[in-house]
Amino acid sequence: AHGRRFVRSSSYDKPCKEMRLYLHDILYDYSNSTSNSTSAAATKPTALATAVPSTGGTFFGQVVVFNDPMTEGRALPPSLEETAVRAQGVYLYNSKEAFNAWFAFSIVFNSTGRRGTLNLMGADIIAEKTRDISVVGGTGDFFMSRGVATLRTDAFEGFTYFRLQMDIKLYECYVV
Amino acid sequence: AHGRRFVRSSSYDKPCKEMRLYLHDILYDYSNSTSNSTSAAATKPTALATAVPSTGGTFFGQVVVFNDPMTEGRALPPSLEETAVRAQGVYLYNSKEAFNAWFAFSIVFNSTGRRGTLNLMGADIIAEKTRDISVVGGTGDFFMSRGVATLRTDAFEGFTYFRLQMDIKLYECYVV
Amino acid sequence: AHGRRFVRSSSYDKPCKEMRLYLHDILYDYSNSTSNSTSAAATKPTALATAVPSTGGTFFGQVVVFNDPMTEGRALPPSLEETAVRAQGVYLYNSKEAFNAWFAFSIVFNSTGRRGTLNLMGADIIAEKTRDISVVGGTGDFFMSRGVATLRTDAFEGFTYFRLQMDIKLYECYVV
Repeated sequence: AHGRRFVRSSSYDKPCKEMRLYLHDILYDYSNSTSNSTSAAATKPTALATAVPSTGGTFFGQVVVFNDPMTEGRALPPSLEETAVRAQGVYLYNSKEAFNAWFAFSIVFNSTGRRGTLNLMGADIIAEKTRDISVVGGTGDFFMSRGVATLRTDAFEGFTYFRLQMDIKLYECYVV
Repeated sequence: AHGRRFVRSSSYDKPCKEMRLYLHDILYDYSNSTSNSTSAAATKPTALATAVPSTGGTFFGQVVVFNDPMTEGRALPPSLEETAVRAQGVYLYNSKEAFNAWFAFSIVFNSTGRRGTLNLMGADIIAEKTRDISVVGGTGDFFMSRGVATLRTDAFEGFTYFRLQMDIKLYECYVV
Repeated sequence: AHGRRFVRSSSYDKPCKEMRLYLHDILYDYSNSTSNSTSAAATKPTALATAVPSTGGTFFGQVVVFNDPMTEGRALPPSLEETAVRAQGVYLYNSKEAFNAWFAFSIVFNSTGRRGTLNLMGADIIAEKTRDISVVGGTGDFFMSRGVATLRTDAFEGFTYFRLQMDIKLYECYVV
């Protein structure tokens, strides 16, 4: 980060840096193999998960720890371990009336072209078509960055796989 | 957020935006109905919760997931589901010697007048009369905001209800 | 914070504030006394913790709540309770292939010389010699601060003690 200077975007439409990444979450479901799973529930849902029976259960209180591959295209990489970008952190379900999640995590970049982290947190109101969370900081190539990430559910398979499209726009950057 | 411009407060006494909100936390206590509860313990207290017997137990290690209504006045709304402002996230108890909590959450605004989120985190040293936590980011009408929220315990009933007064002052805003 | 004015560092090498602190984590191990412990596992490791048997277990999914003393020198203070600086929050293990942690916490300063908090989050890639996390906000004497903290494992004893060297550099400050 030596010699970097601060840049603030002059407009919402012109972020100082932007990228689209897809997050792949493969939840361990207690029966399948652990070899492909990238996330696991650290706690069980609470009694509030079934407070509104018509929902069929909302997982209220379930805390999931994840280490999910992120990719530039939609496809999962052939070898998950070799993914150069990973999202590491926690999400939890927190609604009685709907699937509703809350995220706090780091995106870890580890390639020759990009090295460093972005740190994010925010509410993932799954019922909304898109929802915004905050990029609250960054390190390495993303030194001191701030911005907004827009999430969109791009695909899901039952309760064991979902793919989030994440459009990350940084409005405060330190550039070389 | 189109066309917004950045404003930094020139002084601590003149935030670019401020508001007072009350957070209502109704903890599910394993015996009462789930219908009014807005939070639930995702984990049990650890052994450290009773490390100092004279405290009577401090809940060290208990992680609580919440989706709490927030109101402009002190009164709970007639219908919790219709609250236009909600705090969604997690708090946990982390002291052997006292009730001491740590919060990370989003305030979700969903009315015609205000739409968007604020993201907050910080230590809630309950023994102090007031304590400050950080507003680390925002989205929508609170695009890229930063500031400080001052918490004060306004009321509590045993272990199943507390009301926090939250004075939110933003010092970095993007205004229309 | 009255009368403070904003300062942004002009260069990576010249933070507006910097300090070195050591974080001491004494994990309760279910057998030793609770009197010295400063952290405790709130959840058990998940099935993913042993997904790669050659690792011997990585604690994937274990969530640890902590209230750790921080010191300017390497030595633990004679009385943990009297430590003027404490780190309060949560870390969790999130890798199948290695020890890999993620942190979100507050540093609480409580001495006559320094009062206030710093709020941090980020990935702690333990395999790297040093790793950077974000300082996303601050309060009191650290009002509205942002920066980067560089972590280095300074010592560890099995699974019950580790000491992290934390070099905190703030690049956005409000100074008197």
